[in-house]
Amino acid sequence: MSTRGRQKASDRLSVLAVGAHPDDVEVGCFGTLLKHRDAGHEVTVAITTRGGYGKRTWNQIEEESKNASKILGIDYIVLDNKIGHYEMNWKTVSELDDIISRCAIDTVYTVWHGDSHQDHRLTFQNVLAACRTKSVRNLYCCEMSEYSYRSNSTFNARYFVDISRFIEKKIQAVKAYKSYITPKHIDAILGLARHRGLACDTEYAEAFEPIFNIWK
Amino acid sequence: MSTRGRQKASDRLSVLAVGAHPDDVEVGCFGTLLKHRDAGHEVTVAITTRGGYGKRTWNQIEEESKNASKILGIDYIVLDNKIGHYEMNWKTVSELDDIISRCAIDTVYTVWHGDSHQDHRLTFQNVLAACRTKSVRNLYCCEMSEYSYRSNSTFNARYFVDISRFIEKKIQAVKAYKSYITPKHIDAILGLARHRGLACDTEYAEAFEPIFNIWK
Amino acid sequence: MSTRGRQKASDRLSVLAVGAHPDDVEVGCFGTLLKHRDAGHEVTVAITTRGGYGKRTWNQIEEESKNASKILGIDYIVLDNKIGHYEMNWKTVSELDDIISRCAIDTVYTVWHGDSHQDHRLTFQNVLAACRTKSVRNLYCCEMSEYSYRSNSTFNARYFVDISRFIEKKIQAVKAYKSYITPKHIDAILGLARHRGLACDTEYAEAFEPIFNIWK
Amino acid sequence: MSTRGRQKASDRLSVLAVGAHPDDVEVGCFGTLLKHRDAGHEVTVAITTRGGYGKRTWNQIEEESKNASKILGIDYIVLDNKIGHYEMNWKTVSELDDIISRCAIDTVYTVWHGDSHQDHRLTFQNVLAACRTKSVRNLYCCEMSEYSYRSNSTFNARYFVDISRFIEKKIQAVKAYKSYITPKHIDAILGLARHRGLACDTEYAEAFEPIFNIWK
Amino acid sequence: MSTRGRQKASDRLSVLAVGAHPDDVEVGCFGTLLKHRDAGHEVTVAITTRGGYGKRTWNQIEEESKNASKILGIDYIVLDNKIGHYEMNWKTVSELDDIISRCAIDTVYTVWHGDSHQDHRLTFQNVLAACRTKSVRNLYCCEMSEYSYRSNSTFNARYFVDISRFIEKKIQAVKAYKSYITPKHIDAILGLARHRGLACDTEYAEAFEPIFNIWK
Amino acid sequence: MSTRGRQKASDRLSVLAVGAHPDDVEVGCFGTLLKHRDAGHEVTVAITTRGGYGKRTWNQIEEESKNASKILGIDYIVLDNKIGHYEMNWKTVSELDDIISRCAIDTVYTVWHGDSHQDHRLTFQNVLAACRTKSVRNLYCCEMSEYSYRSNSTFNARYFVDISRFIEKKIQAVKAYKSYITPKHIDAILGLARHRGLACDTEYAEAFEPIFNIWK
Repeated sequence: MSTRGRQKASDRLSVLAVGAHPDDVEVGCFGTLLKHRDAGHEVTVAITTRGGYGKRTWNQIEEESKNASKILGIDYIVLDNKIGHYEMNWKTVSELDDIISRCAIDTVYTVWHGDSHQDHRLTFQNVLAACRTKSVRNLYCCEMSEYSYRSNSTFNARYFVDISRFIEKKIQAVKAYKSYITPKHIDAILGLARHRGLACDTEYAEAFEPIFNIWK
Repeated sequence: MSTRGRQKASDRLSVLAVGAHPDDVEVGCFGTLLKHRDAGHEVTVAITTRGGYGKRTWNQIEEESKNASKILGIDYIVLDNKIGHYEMNWKTVSELDDIISRCAIDTVYTVWHGDSHQDHRLTFQNVLAACRTKSVRNLYCCEMSEYSYRSNSTFNARYFVDISRFIEKKIQAVKAYKSYITPKHIDAILGLARHRGLACDTEYAEAFEPIFNIWK
Repeated sequence: MSTRGRQKASDRLSVLAVGAHPDDVEVGCFGTLLKHRDAGHEVTVAITTRGGYGKRTWNQIEEESKNASKILGIDYIVLDNKIGHYEMNWKTVSELDDIISRCAIDTVYTVWHGDSHQDHRLTFQNVLAACRTKSVRNLYCCEMSEYSYRSNSTFNARYFVDISRFIEKKIQAVKAYKSYITPKHIDAILGLARHRGLACDTEYAEAFEPIFNIWK
Repeated sequence: MSTRGRQKASDRLSVLAVGAHPDDVEVGCFGTLLKHRDAGHEVTVAITTRGGYGKRTWNQIEEESKNASKILGIDYIVLDNKIGHYEMNWKTVSELDDIISRCAIDTVYTVWHGDSHQDHRLTFQNVLAACRTKSVRNLYCCEMSEYSYRSNSTFNARYFVDISRFIEKKIQAVKAYKSYITPKHIDAILGLARHRGLACDTEYAEAFEPIFNIWK
Repeated sequence: MSTRGRQKASDRLSVLAVGAHPDDVEVGCFGTLLKHRDAGHEVTVAITTRGGYGKRTWNQIEEESKNASKILGIDYIVLDNKIGHYEMNWKTVSELDDIISRCAIDTVYTVWHGDSHQDHRLTFQNVLAACRTKSVRNLYCCEMSEYSYRSNSTFNARYFVDISRFIEKKIQAVKAYKSYITPKHIDAILGLARHRGLACDTEYAEAFEPIFNIWK
Repeated sequence: MSTRGRQKASDRLSVLAVGAHPDDVEVGCFGTLLKHRDAGHEVTVAITTRGGYGKRTWNQIEEESKNASKILGIDYIVLDNKIGHYEMNWKTVSELDDIISRCAIDTVYTVWHGDSHQDHRLTFQNVLAACRTKSVRNLYCCEMSEYSYRSNSTFNARYFVDISRFIEKKIQAVKAYKSYITPKHIDAILGLARHRGLACDTEYAEAFEPIFNIWK
């Protein structure tokens, strides 16, 4: 009944995670999404681009992505932008606006503004623009193992989520991308989670860079 | 029973606000402290230095501070460090450790690390050291009208708290420092709260720079 | 005849303010522009995009903009770029080059490079490119209430202009955008000016992030 | 009689330069001080520490400093703090307060907050604290050739002063420190001035990091 | 046979310098490229755009560029993108991928991410994307005299290369661009090299902002 | 004979690692020190403070530290400053000066300037001051798992060292601190090394923030 920290106890958070490509959400915030689900919150996932990459076809990627999404128990929304030809534009902002409005989203996780991959940077910019909607009270960027060091910016980890109870399912989801993910990726993802876990005095954690938080 | 956003519904946050001088807490986060109280959270306030300043004696300041603290309904803890001769040292860290441990503090608000006033910068450093205690899950710096622009750093406002229901009491608390506070201060404090209120789509808000947040 | 601070006494500054949309200049630097006028300086205003937005038609916006511009007593130059489809390109840089050269501009105010709105970020980039012209000795970004907190950067306020004598006319100009501006906007704009005013030991001020200043 | 840019035409700026050691002011802002003098402004110089360093005695340094100060035509104020044992404290802030108040200082140049030398960092902190005085409207940090790269921060050059007419006298002043300054120093100082001169489309310039500017 | 610092003694570094326009490489890192050559390393140079600029035709620029490249004794690779219409895209990334793969590049120098010229910023982004290739172990941005101060970012000089033995040839290469380069440019370039030389306790140096370094 | 990348092939690097407390060097850069040793470089280790901490006596810590140092095969130098009462002062800088001069040190690793622990921040400041010595050409800060997130700054990882061949000995050295180190620490240290290893396309790496590098 009373306010408890950042949200009313009666709040059932409505969370949106936006990746640039399938696997961004699994690598970046899957444990946190599972934790939100476990807490009774709504979870929606959107991917801003589609298309094959390197030797992997879109069919293959899409199938792997579906296997990952089953672990969360929802279907991902995949926007119709061609991978590598993505742009900051009003069309994508509008599509994100629609999702945010339809699902009354209050909490958003997305890829990092400083990432070396342009699809990631542009996805961030589109998400940021869509988050002007008044319902959105929290916006975070995800930390990802592989590309974050190849950047002229520095990931500013300030928010840590204990995902110890969800680490197995996170790894299972990442492994769904079997045409791409190697044991070295898994080791790095587990390793980063261990490292961030120390911050929470726990086993495994995911870290985020907060863009804004509002306690209404 | 279920997790709700950043804390368990069963959580009753235990909040500590640490000022360098009386009036820091009133100017920086009094609305947010009232909101925590209203939400049923524990609130503790500590001041790291004591002593007269300019033409104001400590007796005068202490009395004004007591009048302000009555609005929150608690007694402030005043550490025994002489104003202007404050240091970063283990004695103060220990005293803060004791408060954090005794009150099982999980959420801390304090003055800004980039402030031009050395008592503020050193208070931040001592608080940061004390926040190594595992119980602390949230640490924020307060935004203050008067000195923040005279700095070589920039206040990084990322967390906004709607204090519309508490603005009157906040102003009342600030006005308790009647030997010091002028109408111009009140206008600036109200003005900043209006400006930050726009971020929350509300009337009045306080802004904070987050140092870390943990969702356990 | 002698040099006085940053410019020769014989200098009559020639000021250009560049907004991305009508109302940017009114919200961001109208008080400062009025102060420049009052000091006998030339003032030119350019808007980089045109077009309706949300439910507001361009006709409506243009008429409101004209009403605002009358308070400054000049006509705004509106470049022919479609709102939301604006780009960083040589065409716009050329058009700004022409204005800077024709009016012998030495001082430029524009929107903030870190703003969440892409039209603002791109306008900044085009203005920055145009400011390579040797006549330009001062470049500033404006602080705006509404969007600045929704960003991954932080507005670095370092230059403060006392606009106490011009606050009424500034508010009058902002109110000209009657199809858009609400009392909450006015409160936030006045509030921010009060807050920044404390920095100047005055009633109302506008704040800017300096990009460069040259004292020749 | 009218306002001209940042200051009233009737303004006769009153400038204070604060070095940590003799030679800081000569290397960092001597050209700009000469330009202020040439423009009819008051110029005051203070040094925060005294004492021999390496093989150089204080007598030697003091004499060299006097020779340099003659070029500016004023006596430097030397505070009584021992070199290398300098502290951030109220005593020094008070002494700077007195100078600022006595000379009605409005414009201050000092050493850089990010310098690797602790005397420089502490001098900056003391100067910043003293600049809370309302008369001070401009505060800048100087760029210096020798130590600035050995730092964990980055000098943020934003203000450039054309000193082409004063470069000879600046070099003459630097050379006054003959027990210390080598041709390599002179080359580096001239080189930096050439490099910064390109920003002003001129021959020689000094660069500064602005902390704050106020146009009243 | 043993490892020596950052690379195996048996390593013969393979260096790529990428400019946005002819003359970027000469101004930014020509001394360092000559030093690599002198150390027996492979050096490759690529330019991402072509086309006339201002009053200079591409024929003229190309001829000047060839004269400069002769000093290094290699032919530059010029990609087929029109100056001023350059984009961040997969085509350019692919072309850079090919060069990196063909020449087994391990060390890359390019233009600065914070430069005011969009061709420079976009070239950096494309180079950064291409540097995801595993063979690349070092990526640096070059410091350039003319535009770096007209930016909202700050060049973060951390890597310094003593080019005293190569300064004459560097200046000769820069002078090859005789339709553009004036004595003022030469003075500024020499001046910056003198200034950075002080960091190396030498006569002339080039400075770089490191993006990443790997010691395998 | 010829120059190879950053140093002459004839160079035998002389490396100094400076910790604030025993275990800093093991956690932060032990793998890299072992790699330097393996490459035939000189390695020296200094600790700036001594004293018991929490329930651990200095005797206990010293013995553990000796066990760790045996793995590197050298004795650590322990300066005589009391833990927690450490200061930035000329005495410590002098002692570091002596070590640097005696061992002709060219490469220095130390604790991070932004660490929440004051002994770490002050050790960095003292080391930075000592690194003004001309022989020092490389200075790096170490990344450490436990405290780095509790800071108002962000660790800027740019230099990565593949330590796969040395990870076992690093872990063995960390485990020498048996009165303090728990399996959770080991997991976090291994995890961070795995995460940073991905940057090098290898198994395990240590990351550093470069302060400066010079190629003479």
